[in-house]
Amino acid sequence: MSLQPIKIGLLGLGTVGGGTINLLRRNAEEIARRAGRGIVVISAAARDLDKTRTLSLEGIRLTGNAQDVVADPEVEIVCELIGGIEPARALVLAAIERGKHVVTANKALIALHGNEIFAAAQRKGVMVAFEAAVAGGIPIIKAIREGLSGNRIQTVAGIINGTCNYILTEMRERGADFQTVLAEAQRLGYAEADPSVDIDGVDAAHKLTILASIAFGIPLQFDKVYTEGIGRIGAMDIAYADELGYRIKSLGIARHAGDGIELRVHPTLIPKRHPIAGVEGVMNAVLVVGDAVGPTMFYGRGAGAEPTASAVVSDLVDVVRAMTSDPENRVPHLAFQPNAMSDITVKPMESVQTAYYLRMNAVDKPGVLANVTAILGKLGISIEAIIQKVPDPAANVVPVIFLTQRVQERNMNEAIHAIEALDSISGSVFRVRVEMLE
Amino acid sequence: MSLQPIKIGLLGLGTVGGGTINLLRRNAEEIARRAGRGIVVISAAARDLDKTRTLSLEGIRLTGNAQDVVADPEVEIVCELIGGIEPARALVLAAIERGKHVVTANKALIALHGNEIFAAAQRKGVMVAFEAAVAGGIPIIKAIREGLSGNRIQTVAGIINGTCNYILTEMRERGADFQTVLAEAQRLGYAEADPSVDIDGVDAAHKLTILASIAFGIPLQFDKVYTEGIGRIGAMDIAYADELGYRIKSLGIARHAGDGIELRVHPTLIPKRHPIAGVEGVMNAVLVVGDAVGPTMFYGRGAGAEPTASAVVSDLVDVVRAMTSDPENRVPHLAFQPNAMSDITVKPMESVQTAYYLRMNAVDKPGVLANVTAILGKLGISIEAIIQKVPDPAANVVPVIFLTQRVQERNMNEAIHAIEALDSISGSVFRVRVEMLE
Repeated sequence: MSLQPIKIGLLGLGTVGGGTINLLRRNAEEIARRAGRGIVVISAAARDLDKTRTLSLEGIRLTGNAQDVVADPEVEIVCELIGGIEPARALVLAAIERGKHVVTANKALIALHGNEIFAAAQRKGVMVAFEAAVAGGIPIIKAIREGLSGNRIQTVAGIINGTCNYILTEMRERGADFQTVLAEAQRLGYAEADPSVDIDGVDAAHKLTILASIAFGIPLQFDKVYTEGIGRIGAMDIAYADELGYRIKSLGIARHAGDGIELRVHPTLIPKRHPIAGVEGVMNAVLVVGDAVGPTMFYGRGAGAEPTASAVVSDLVDVVRAMTSDPENRVPHLAFQPNAMSDITVKPMESVQTAYYLRMNAVDKPGVLANVTAILGKLGISIEAIIQKVPDPAANVVPVIFLTQRVQERNMNEAIHAIEALDSISGSVFRVRVEMLE
Repeated sequence: MSLQPIKIGLLGLGTVGGGTINLLRRNAEEIARRAGRGIVVISAAARDLDKTRTLSLEGIRLTGNAQDVVADPEVEIVCELIGGIEPARALVLAAIERGKHVVTANKALIALHGNEIFAAAQRKGVMVAFEAAVAGGIPIIKAIREGLSGNRIQTVAGIINGTCNYILTEMRERGADFQTVLAEAQRLGYAEADPSVDIDGVDAAHKLTILASIAFGIPLQFDKVYTEGIGRIGAMDIAYADELGYRIKSLGIARHAGDGIELRVHPTLIPKRHPIAGVEGVMNAVLVVGDAVGPTMFYGRGAGAEPTASAVVSDLVDVVRAMTSDPENRVPHLAFQPNAMSDITVKPMESVQTAYYLRMNAVDKPGVLANVTAILGKLGISIEAIIQKVPDPAANVVPVIFLTQRVQERNMNEAIHAIEALDSISGSVFRVRVEMLE
C-alpha cells in the first residue's frame, strides 16, 4: 500500500453524502485492501454551511460553492450526491470537461441526460459510474452490464421503489387503505412530504429507463416509459387478488418482445409463488431473465444512507482499481490485493455457536423429559420448543424433538453424549443446526 | 467492430463445453456489441474424438491432446471446462506459463489449488476468471468481489448445491424419504450415479471455500471447512421442522465472527419467512450480508449447460474487455459499445399484451354478467376467473372481479369503454395488469 490515496470531492452532504463519508472512514482499511490504495474525501460542497451536523468533517475542506470542488486540482474523482437535474447536470459535465471521473447516485440525471453525459465522458476518456442510481445497495447495474453479458436479456422486472412496496405490503398485511398507510409511511420517513415522485411511478420509471438501456443496448429514453401509480389500488383489490392467488406489486417491467421493447411501470398482479411476490416492505428486488441463464433475481435494500453509500463506495473502488492497475490486475483474483490477505483463523466447529434441532427416541418411561432438560440446563442450553407426540401404543419408543437457543457446539456435543447415555433414550440423538440468518 | 475477434481454445467438450460453444455462436452479435469485438472458439480438446456429437464443430480444430490447445500460438484465452484436479491443474498452469488468460468453471481446482494458480497468474500478469465455479449463472463472484466492495462482509450463506436442494424440496413436498427421492433424482439427471460429492456436501464446501476467500480476504483453505451431508435427514425431520416454523436446507455458511471465521456446510433449519427458505428445487441462492448494504440475496440456476455457459461467456467478455480497452472504457457506460446501440422501437402501451384484473360495480340487474362476458368475448378476451360476492342487501351495487387471459391493451381499452357504457355497470372499470413473470 505505498501508493498515495485517491482524492475524492463530494457534492452534497445530505443522507447519502454523509453515509458515504462514514462508510469510507469506517471501512478504510478493508477498502484499501481491496482497491490497492486508500480513498479519502478531501473536499465537499453543501448547500447550507451553517447546518449543525453530527458528521465529523475533519480533514475535509467545506465549501458552499460546488464548482470549487469540481475545480479543485487535487480532486481526482467527483462524487455527485445532490440529486435532481440542475445544478447536478452542469457540475457533472464540468467535472468531465476537466478530465475527472464521476460517481453519481442520481437516477433522474442519468435517465434524462445520460446520453449527453456518457457522450461527453467518452470524448474525455473518463468514467461515469452510477450503480447507486438503481436499487440502492443491490449491484444490479454490474450484474446486467458485466455479470450476465453472455445473455440476450429477455425481461427485467423489478420492485424498484421501496415506498410503493412498503405501502402495498402494509395495505395487504393490515387490510388498511392507501391514504392511511401513506400518512403513516410519511410519519416514519418511508415516504416524502410530497410523495408523488414515488407513488406515481416516476422514480421507478427513471430506474427502469436505465435498466432497459443496459439490458437491451438501447439509448436512454425516459419519455417512452408508460407510468401508472399505485394511488387507485384499494384494500379490496389486494384482498381479491389474494383470493385469486396473486399479490399486487408496483413493478417496473422492460421486455424484449421481438418486434419492440416494452417499457412500463404499473401496479401488477403476480402469482404468490413467484420469488418476487415475497419481497416485502421497503426491500427491492430485480428479476432478470436471460436466454442462457434463465431467471435470476437480485434482492436487497433499495434506499437509505448506508445501502446507497455501499453502491457509491463500490463504484469508487471500481474507478480506483481501473485508474491504478494494469488491466490484467484490475480486480484481484481473490477480491483483496495479494499482499493484503488476512490470516484470521478459521474456527474449529466446536467453538461455533448455533441453535439446534434435536430428535431422539424416548423409551416410554416417566421422567424422560425431566432427565433431558436437566442435562441441557446444566450445560446452559435453553429450550425454545419441545414436540412430543402421543405415543403410538404399538411402538416401544416415541420421538421427542427439542429446539434449543444458541449455544457453543462444544456444549451441545457434551449434552448429546450425556443424553445418549440415559436409559430412557434409545439410540443416538439426531442434530440439525438452526440459523435465523438475521 | 473493426477489431479482429479474440481466439479461444476450449478444453473439454462435455455439457459445459458444448453449452459454451452454442452460446458464443447464438449470441455472437450481442456479445460483440458488448465486448467491442467478436469471441470465437478456434480449437478444442476432447477426451473421445470419435464420440457422436449433436454439436457442430465447424471451424474448430479438434484434438485429443489438450496440450495442443494450450500450446496453439493463435489461442489467446484458454477455457478450462474439463473439471477435476488433473490434468486440469497442469493445463491451467501451462496456459498461464505461456502468458494466456484462463477462464475456468472448475470449483474443485480453485478451492484446492487456487492459491498456487493465482500466484502464477500474478507473476505472469494474466487473468484467471472463475465466475462459473460458484452458483452457475448467478454472478455472485462479481457481486462480492466488485459490487459490494465497500462493505465489511459479515455473512455469506448459500444454497449452492442444486442436487441437495432438489432432494430436500421433493422430500418436503411429497413427504418422501431420502433414498426414494435420491433414486428419482438420479433417473432425472439431477444427481450423479455416484452422488456422494453432492449429498455429502463436498461440492458445496468447494464453493464455500471460494466465497469465503473473496468475502473476507483470507486464503483458500478447503481443508478447514466443516462438512456434513443431508443423507441422515428423514421425512419426519422435515415435518417436525415445518411444525416449528422452519425449512431444512443444505447451506454453506461463512461468517466473520470477530475472533475468527466460521466455515461450514450442513443441513440447517431456517425460518420459513426468510427469503432463502423459498428457494426450491434445483435453484441456487446466496445471501450476502454486508455492514453497509445489509442483507442481499442473489438467486438463479446453479447448474446446467446454459446457466454455466452464461457465467463462462460473461467471464470471457470481462477478459476481452480488459484486453481490448483503455482502463477507462473497459465496460461501456450503457453495457453496449456506443457505436453498437440498437434503435429497436419502444412499443406504445396499446400494443403491449398482458392479462388483466378488472373490478367493476354491477347494478343488481339480471343479465349483467352476460352483458360483460359478451363484450369480452367479442373482443377475443378469454376469462380466467370471476368473483362475484353475494350482494349486500343494503348496497345498490355489487363488486364483480374478472381475471382475463392475455390480450392486447388496445382490445382491453375498447372492452372497458364498452363495459362502462352498460346500464348495468355503475362508474368506471378499474384495471390492474397481471404478469406471470415466467
